[in-house]
Amino acid sequence: MDTAAILAEIHAELSAREDRGRVADYIPELARVDPAQFALSVVLADGSQHSVGDARVPFSIQSISKVFTLAIALGRLGDRLWARVGREPSGHAFNSILQLEGEGGRPRNPFINAGAIVVTDAILAGHQPKELLGELLRFIRDAAGDDDIHINARVARSETRTGHRNFALAHFMRAHGNLENPPDLTLGAYFHQCAIEMTCDQLARAGRFLIGAGGGPRLVSPGRVRRINALMMMCGHYDGSGEFAYRVGLPGKSGVGGGILAVAPGRAAIAAWSPGLNAQGNSKLGTEAVEMLARRMGWSVFG
Amino acid sequence: MDTAAILAEIHAELSAREDRGRVADYIPELARVDPAQFALSVVLADGSQHSVGDARVPFSIQSISKVFTLAIALGRLGDRLWARVGREPSGHAFNSILQLEGEGGRPRNPFINAGAIVVTDAILAGHQPKELLGELLRFIRDAAGDDDIHINARVARSETRTGHRNFALAHFMRAHGNLENPPDLTLGAYFHQCAIEMTCDQLARAGRFLIGAGGGPRLVSPGRVRRINALMMMCGHYDGSGEFAYRVGLPGKSGVGGGILAVAPGRAAIAAWSPGLNAQGNSKLGTEAVEMLARRMGWSVFG
Amino acid sequence: MDTAAILAEIHAELSAREDRGRVADYIPELARVDPAQFALSVVLADGSQHSVGDARVPFSIQSISKVFTLAIALGRLGDRLWARVGREPSGHAFNSILQLEGEGGRPRNPFINAGAIVVTDAILAGHQPKELLGELLRFIRDAAGDDDIHINARVARSETRTGHRNFALAHFMRAHGNLENPPDLTLGAYFHQCAIEMTCDQLARAGRFLIGAGGGPRLVSPGRVRRINALMMMCGHYDGSGEFAYRVGLPGKSGVGGGILAVAPGRAAIAAWSPGLNAQGNSKLGTEAVEMLARRMGWSVFG
Amino acid sequence: MDTAAILAEIHAELSAREDRGRVADYIPELARVDPAQFALSVVLADGSQHSVGDARVPFSIQSISKVFTLAIALGRLGDRLWARVGREPSGHAFNSILQLEGEGGRPRNPFINAGAIVVTDAILAGHQPKELLGELLRFIRDAAGDDDIHINARVARSETRTGHRNFALAHFMRAHGNLENPPDLTLGAYFHQCAIEMTCDQLARAGRFLIGAGGGPRLVSPGRVRRINALMMMCGHYDGSGEFAYRVGLPGKSGVGGGILAVAPGRAAIAAWSPGLNAQGNSKLGTEAVEMLARRMGWSVFG
Repeated sequence: MDTAAILAEIHAELSAREDRGRVADYIPELARVDPAQFALSVVLADGSQHSVGDARVPFSIQSISKVFTLAIALGRLGDRLWARVGREPSGHAFNSILQLEGEGGRPRNPFINAGAIVVTDAILAGHQPKELLGELLRFIRDAAGDDDIHINARVARSETRTGHRNFALAHFMRAHGNLENPPDLTLGAYFHQCAIEMTCDQLARAGRFLIGAGGGPRLVSPGRVRRINALMMMCGHYDGSGEFAYRVGLPGKSGVGGGILAVAPGRAAIAAWSPGLNAQGNSKLGTEAVEMLARRMGWSVFG
Repeated sequence: MDTAAILAEIHAELSAREDRGRVADYIPELARVDPAQFALSVVLADGSQHSVGDARVPFSIQSISKVFTLAIALGRLGDRLWARVGREPSGHAFNSILQLEGEGGRPRNPFINAGAIVVTDAILAGHQPKELLGELLRFIRDAAGDDDIHINARVARSETRTGHRNFALAHFMRAHGNLENPPDLTLGAYFHQCAIEMTCDQLARAGRFLIGAGGGPRLVSPGRVRRINALMMMCGHYDGSGEFAYRVGLPGKSGVGGGILAVAPGRAAIAAWSPGLNAQGNSKLGTEAVEMLARRMGWSVFG
Repeated sequence: MDTAAILAEIHAELSAREDRGRVADYIPELARVDPAQFALSVVLADGSQHSVGDARVPFSIQSISKVFTLAIALGRLGDRLWARVGREPSGHAFNSILQLEGEGGRPRNPFINAGAIVVTDAILAGHQPKELLGELLRFIRDAAGDDDIHINARVARSETRTGHRNFALAHFMRAHGNLENPPDLTLGAYFHQCAIEMTCDQLARAGRFLIGAGGGPRLVSPGRVRRINALMMMCGHYDGSGEFAYRVGLPGKSGVGGGILAVAPGRAAIAAWSPGLNAQGNSKLGTEAVEMLARRMGWSVFG
Repeated sequence: MDTAAILAEIHAELSAREDRGRVADYIPELARVDPAQFALSVVLADGSQHSVGDARVPFSIQSISKVFTLAIALGRLGDRLWARVGREPSGHAFNSILQLEGEGGRPRNPFINAGAIVVTDAILAGHQPKELLGELLRFIRDAAGDDDIHINARVARSETRTGHRNFALAHFMRAHGNLENPPDLTLGAYFHQCAIEMTCDQLARAGRFLIGAGGGPRLVSPGRVRRINALMMMCGHYDGSGEFAYRVGLPGKSGVGGGILAVAPGRAAIAAWSPGLNAQGNSKLGTEAVEMLARRMGWSVFG
């Protein structure tokens, strides 16, 4: 069976699914998204793309943006970045402050909130958030080969108003000397990066640079692709990363907007979207879709 | 360059290395192992084997035994095992009791000590430790195709005498109803499984069943191979698992005796041994050897 | 109103109380105690005693025994004891292992389980549990002026069988070098000391040595009396110590058998007993009785 | 020997002391205080006052202000305050965020930073910080019978600039719904209350209302005096509260500026000041001075 047929099959199977998890409701802009939506899109190494469902509906990529800021930060700072953030799974919820206290204000990895705030702070480096956001959008648009990708300012403002836990993380790291810019400035950039909107089609294309073998623009070196994929595998789904590795067997990064970006190294970039989340805060149907796809395509990196 | 030449090159480069880490010294039997020893062995998918260094010197496999007990436990209990132990990285040291208290006596994964004790307890299931150990040795001997693999009784006795932290973990889980057998009995089996001795040659051959494509005996189903590899990737190096994934890019499991078993899915099983440990308790030169091998062979699962 | 009248009044008021908390049920011997029982007894500094309710029914003193072992340990080791156990409230449940891991195996104070096990271990010091228990019974009988005080061997055996959490604490401290005797031996003594049975009448008399001004035998120096009282105030009711200080304003020590020993320095020793416990594991009616007594007698140490 | 002679004796003994601890240095205004200064002042229940040393030099009362805001908050909200903050010792450092995460954003007691911020937030209640600070200064001036007590605006500004850890605590509690006002506003009031300056003479007089028997203005009811004293005993010296109770035996509250306010219920209010701090962040010589005084006067509440 070919890729298109497998996607159609997965779409059909998941359409019947009643339990779709819980839509994130901490800001009104996310809460009112229709939970019935679903999309799955795949770009193969040869550049061909296949999509099913609502693949042209923009959604808030939220934490998936952390993959792109990490790529930029590694390009700019290289291994110096690791002085400020670790590379280990956290063993705690995505927004936990516990670990930070135990480890002197150095977040465990770049994909939990605290770590992503540090990464954003590192590339902000005295510039205005506007400049950083301009560079980030350029990177993502280049990756996707599509200029129609924007920030939803209303979402960013809502997050700024309600993001007290992120303010707590930022001030805490600042107290430990692990934030260079004023918390307001770094978080201003952070909340806007999370408010980027993309369609599933766009997101799959933007993930091509992580396939690591033709098929997309070479935005980072092969060695760096491997490392970003390793970090996505180990830490990309918060405290559900082990579960994703066990079930899906691919590097991936989820966002609270219901999106998932996954990579089958050498083979494909995958984007899935469904707004309902499971207990770990990852898209419920999105995870299942990527799991079904990986199994039917034989794409697990584990054999 | 072929595999044998690459191995020879790695051997030569690492021979000059002066900083070889610290040999584990909590029991005399491990403390007196010569730190200058080093071995690396590879079995390719076609069954051919290449080794360098002290590949025929037996060493204590310690925590690497957890891979084999997990394979047996999954074969016997299937997914019921996961009611008693999780599949997430721990974010804590290998013998931490902190996480257990926070999560009601259910260890985070089968490769930290608490989780491995639960796995052993699950397959003990009312039998005598002797029977379990017989079955485990049979499994390992079948996997390696070699009957000359034994338990070092003196090591087992030493660990029993000094293993108070493991006794604490076992009693703690028993207090939470997550240990079926008396702690003495389960730990008796556990300390003996850790005291199994193998050579690097034997260990690489014993890892063939995880390659997942010919080359070795089919001891578990392909789906299970993928899952064991996923768990090794996520949790196989304690609180250094993220580091191993980042540097090496292969599933692997380390032991405090200085051994590492790693798998390049579809391609090879790898065993490395050098007694000196790094800060996370994993073999210092062993890790470097596997990292060099994976890079030069292009074996990273991440692209 | 005189002391006897106030006691009678309290007895009458509390008799009507329906919500009496939950009897400890982790061993059958405690679970089957009649929850309707209640006693309150006071020995004034002049030696006179007043009691109401079931003041002649023996009950299991459990953790109240820790006051007597602490007095013996301070007499034997003096300030050397504090190298092994702290003097701060724990901020955790009575049997928590969390704090131990964070602080290298040194319990926060002598009244949480871990700390009391260390105190028992310190006075065991190579002797047999039998000798320690003989000395402890002599101390308590002298304090109470009553030889009819015994250990309930069935309770001790039950605790030994079910005390896995205490075994975990003991092995954990042994792993940190903070237990001198084999865990089995120290816990053997510990479980037996907790299984001492006393009546409320006997317990109030046994507390006279803490009044610190005549009225009872001088078993420890005045300076030591002050310090034991300080420790009872700060740590005597586990994670409900702040609550007891706030409501009652007296040093006190509770046991899971429903007993409370409290001291009004310079004025009186108080014993209360009612088997039902509140959420913090302290006697519900016992706490209320001591609170009413302290308020009506004007005995709070806080003004 | 009378009170004045005992004070003179203590002053003489402590003058020779070389190890005076470490002056707080997180803001320049505190760092440049002369560490050689020392003062001790006592107001007896009869209203007479005795002082030695630098008793007329103003210092930053810092956390001692929490006693006064607590008194105001209890007067205004009564027991409703306890819905937002607990009454138990914390078992952690004064500015820990660990406990907050474990207990859903409800601080353990009103004297750790998080708890004091909640108390200030509760009495701010929609008003401007200016109004709250006016009320607080009136309360303290009434208590001391002295209008010459002011806020050091430079200290307040410094704390605002460097108080990232307190911002983290405030935002974290706001995220849990346990802060009613914007963090900036509540912390604005909090940093200013901590920047109040008093002399040792003034502070001892301001403590008279806690003696609970004549000698000073009756600012709160006797029952409330007892409760405030209980909280000071249990939680007044952060994670050194057990130590202070053990050594001194009196309720007390310390500040990072080196001040201590202690109460001998029914007998005296005591103020000590010396800028050098011990490991728990409490005045080193101040603690010793109050300990010597309590012992020589026989003032311990514990007998």
